[in-house]
Amino acid sequence: MEVHQIKLRPKMTVGQLLEEMYKCGVLGAGKLGAATDIVASMFSDRKCKVYLTLAGALVPGGLRNIISMLIKENYVHGIVTTGANIVHDILEALGFKHLRGSFKANDRKLRSERIGRIGDIYIELKAYEEMENWLKKTISSIPEEIRANISAVRLMKELGLRLKDENSILAVAAERNVPVICPGFMDCVAGFQIWTFADELNLKIDFFGDMETLINMMIEAERVGLIILGGGTPKHFALFASTFREGVDYAVQITMDRPEPGGLSGAKLEEAISWGKIKPSARFITVVCDATIAFPLIIAAALEKIKRN
Amino acid sequence: MEVHQIKLRPKMTVGQLLEEMYKCGVLGAGKLGAATDIVASMFSDRKCKVYLTLAGALVPGGLRNIISMLIKENYVHGIVTTGANIVHDILEALGFKHLRGSFKANDRKLRSERIGRIGDIYIELKAYEEMENWLKKTISSIPEEIRANISAVRLMKELGLRLKDENSILAVAAERNVPVICPGFMDCVAGFQIWTFADELNLKIDFFGDMETLINMMIEAERVGLIILGGGTPKHFALFASTFREGVDYAVQITMDRPEPGGLSGAKLEEAISWGKIKPSARFITVVCDATIAFPLIIAAALEKIKRN
Amino acid sequence: MEVHQIKLRPKMTVGQLLEEMYKCGVLGAGKLGAATDIVASMFSDRKCKVYLTLAGALVPGGLRNIISMLIKENYVHGIVTTGANIVHDILEALGFKHLRGSFKANDRKLRSERIGRIGDIYIELKAYEEMENWLKKTISSIPEEIRANISAVRLMKELGLRLKDENSILAVAAERNVPVICPGFMDCVAGFQIWTFADELNLKIDFFGDMETLINMMIEAERVGLIILGGGTPKHFALFASTFREGVDYAVQITMDRPEPGGLSGAKLEEAISWGKIKPSARFITVVCDATIAFPLIIAAALEKIKRN
Amino acid sequence: MEVHQIKLRPKMTVGQLLEEMYKCGVLGAGKLGAATDIVASMFSDRKCKVYLTLAGALVPGGLRNIISMLIKENYVHGIVTTGANIVHDILEALGFKHLRGSFKANDRKLRSERIGRIGDIYIELKAYEEMENWLKKTISSIPEEIRANISAVRLMKELGLRLKDENSILAVAAERNVPVICPGFMDCVAGFQIWTFADELNLKIDFFGDMETLINMMIEAERVGLIILGGGTPKHFALFASTFREGVDYAVQITMDRPEPGGLSGAKLEEAISWGKIKPSARFITVVCDATIAFPLIIAAALEKIKRN
Repeated sequence: MEVHQIKLRPKMTVGQLLEEMYKCGVLGAGKLGAATDIVASMFSDRKCKVYLTLAGALVPGGLRNIISMLIKENYVHGIVTTGANIVHDILEALGFKHLRGSFKANDRKLRSERIGRIGDIYIELKAYEEMENWLKKTISSIPEEIRANISAVRLMKELGLRLKDENSILAVAAERNVPVICPGFMDCVAGFQIWTFADELNLKIDFFGDMETLINMMIEAERVGLIILGGGTPKHFALFASTFREGVDYAVQITMDRPEPGGLSGAKLEEAISWGKIKPSARFITVVCDATIAFPLIIAAALEKIKRN
Repeated sequence: MEVHQIKLRPKMTVGQLLEEMYKCGVLGAGKLGAATDIVASMFSDRKCKVYLTLAGALVPGGLRNIISMLIKENYVHGIVTTGANIVHDILEALGFKHLRGSFKANDRKLRSERIGRIGDIYIELKAYEEMENWLKKTISSIPEEIRANISAVRLMKELGLRLKDENSILAVAAERNVPVICPGFMDCVAGFQIWTFADELNLKIDFFGDMETLINMMIEAERVGLIILGGGTPKHFALFASTFREGVDYAVQITMDRPEPGGLSGAKLEEAISWGKIKPSARFITVVCDATIAFPLIIAAALEKIKRN
Repeated sequence: MEVHQIKLRPKMTVGQLLEEMYKCGVLGAGKLGAATDIVASMFSDRKCKVYLTLAGALVPGGLRNIISMLIKENYVHGIVTTGANIVHDILEALGFKHLRGSFKANDRKLRSERIGRIGDIYIELKAYEEMENWLKKTISSIPEEIRANISAVRLMKELGLRLKDENSILAVAAERNVPVICPGFMDCVAGFQIWTFADELNLKIDFFGDMETLINMMIEAERVGLIILGGGTPKHFALFASTFREGVDYAVQITMDRPEPGGLSGAKLEEAISWGKIKPSARFITVVCDATIAFPLIIAAALEKIKRN
Repeated sequence: MEVHQIKLRPKMTVGQLLEEMYKCGVLGAGKLGAATDIVASMFSDRKCKVYLTLAGALVPGGLRNIISMLIKENYVHGIVTTGANIVHDILEALGFKHLRGSFKANDRKLRSERIGRIGDIYIELKAYEEMENWLKKTISSIPEEIRANISAVRLMKELGLRLKDENSILAVAAERNVPVICPGFMDCVAGFQIWTFADELNLKIDFFGDMETLINMMIEAERVGLIILGGGTPKHFALFASTFREGVDYAVQITMDRPEPGGLSGAKLEEAISWGKIKPSARFITVVCDATIAFPLIIAAALEKIKRN
């Protein structure tokens, strides 16, 4: 099939440009176009449950509203995430803002000003102190018999129910009963903070519950689609859970990591077929691109496509 | 300044999405948004001459029509390119097509089928034989007194004038009198082919003429903007020529190469300030992204922006 | 200071070559040389506790013996790891081998042959079944009162004590009382397998215990050094724990991930200063290199250096 | 075949460590080991002509002495290079030094101090003025009948013969009659400087001569090996010249560029088979690594290997 030369038109929509890229069919543009088509397919397949996995600075990087919108509008049925994206979601819900900074910052100066840096994004450290207060108060309000043995996924829901922010991922997911699964929750600031008062509040978190939740959903779904932003534990957890159903039916991964060093985050999705994580018949694509660029494009274009059809 | 959380709207235009990314302001999306704003500025600055540098599989990768459109519509006033993009432009103009293939191809099989591979793009080798015939015939038609000492930039023009293809970069540039400068022209298939019959046709190519052309244009321009796709000799040549005017006023680079190994292709544009290639007061940005993704987006959005204003 | 031009000598040792790179002082070679010097400093500083964090295909990629040697020889005092490296360590200890494969594998064929692929490494899936049997048997042998509420770090130790393999990371660490901390242990095949029989064996894993162990060690140490292979939860966990002591004194990170997309795995170590994870006065360096290349070099050279002194 | 777990030994030589990596066989270490074995094979094959291609900041990055040593000791029979590495070689030969700087430099400040930055390497701009004087004086000393139509490869030789520096690539190559081929020579500071006085000195450079030289050498050689550092025009030129002999017999590429965007610099060597640039039966490998790290290792180990045998 011929490579299509991309044509621009005045005021073209994102969907129209991605359609051009899909027809182009090669290199990064072709992959991005194919990813759009696959996401549109999972979104319009009523028998398909869609899981979104989050790793990297996605909430600080401006993708929070898109993620919560996808939950609100019922396109995404489960979130698997790093702890950090939960923390950043809570911080924003508590009224703190991520700030525009610089990759070439003087980190010693930032340290003295009590500002933490994530790439070219800054956040005041006092926000974390506020979060600790909020977490303690909020977890205290969970009935003691529940918090004495609470699954992580239930804890995320209880936190989400107590956040008042219509753009919060946690809040919207809690309201819609969309599970937020965080296999490495202990490895985030919130996890550390909770540890400091867990004994006092008699809090025990059961991480086995997350597996059960995710695997049951995976098994019950007629079809499953994955949208994988970055890699890390969320990619691994969601893909491994899918082995209990002989693999997913659709998958899109957006990553800037390389495959050559052998880590999972940079592994092309093909590899997942060998493990039974992706069905041999599945539609899937790996897009090598910054998620803050590719994800908004894919979602805008996929939604345009399915609403147009 | 706060990180703006990107908002999607139904059927939003590319320009509207890039505006959201510009407001986001951080990571890849923020850089892409800023690049759009800078390109819009150079395109709408009537005193600014804009040079586009081409390295990488841009014509095979589907960007040919966008590039020739920019020349036709008078947004770009000079092209600095690798030889390969010229070759691929000629091949397409002669009616051959790049084909969609696979990164996981069996190259031994392709070899036996006489198909050359560029990433996931295929091209039949016989196209190159046709090109050789065309080159010989075409160069023969250039008056002997001219070809006895022809500048490379003039040779590109003579080739372009003889291509009948309204989407050809060479053809459109020749028609519009936009110079196509190719500092490494000897290092492309066309260069090798020309070498084989240069003696016979008494052809001598003067590469000094390219410098003169580019530097004079650089000096005469009130302001200069660079759009750098990939790196390589085109990036270096255009930036070095700009030292004769104390640096350019606007610059956008799109590259996937890394800065850490020290090569120019991956160097962030900041570095160019130290060399007097970019003015300290210039507006510039480096976008780490596949050019087949970023370039169509930036151009579509920049054109929308300047037509909207 | 001048860039030193690297000189090769016949049969030079790894330490001698890395010394040349250290003197070179720039680009990748300079960073690798500096990393060697920093690692030698932490290894020879008797008041320094050294933590090694593991993410990526390190055990499958051939680094297992180096890691266990460092524990045996008392250079490393704590391991923070992904679950996958624990799984691969157990598989090797049970007598299974990782096999040399290809990045261009036919994954559908591998699937039918029950072989899982990690980059260009293969492993038979039956090994995982054996591991499941072993895990169940082994965990059954842990006294019931202990396993009713076992910390993850204790569970790792109990597993290690029951592995008979002098090159096993888990076994050697258990023997030397070096904690193996795995903040995302639930997210690995072993974690999933344990989940399937946890109820039956009345097993409860307490992840808060890991934090306590690591943070206490961090606080008690006069100085702390980190060697970070890859990124992921191990990098984050170890760095965050270090905030309880106002940051580490030495740090070396080896990663191929990029900083631009904003994820922690690709973040340069400078960023950690702003968070109080690395002391402003610390010696630290980020090496952009495949860990399977850089880590053996750094360790061989650092050991040579400290034994020479 | 099993993945070999790398073993370190006290004071092991570079060759011994690379042998361990070769036996490891996978990921980056395995590739580096294989590259060493292939380079050792080409160096010890008396019927093989070896070409080294140079792109990126190799001379500024500390590899100059290794390159000139390989020429002196008759391991390398041709150099294909960017202009920049020639420029940096001349600057060092004229007594100027590259300096250790920082990636996070203030480029505006460097500009005011007349220091140019290449990654984390600095060079005083006055060195370039001295080079201009030297070039003019030196080229003036070439007999007028020769410089009226001098091939680029001859010009490189004439320059090399006039440099007094036993570590200079140009000087050593000239003395040994090893051709230095620079297909993009016009695109370097020296090229620009020469342009400014070319008319005055009646200098005409014939670039066709380079092709003839290289292709004839390629055709005459019984076997050919390529060592490709970085990519760019040198990689393309050397590989394309090899089509005239149906491809090379050995090839090693060291690059940090990615294949996904489709550019030649990041393309894996497999691709070259489809074009007839590498023989289907050839031994070749692509190593994804910073050349300043990988090249010294490979050369030290390959030389140790062939001297040991």
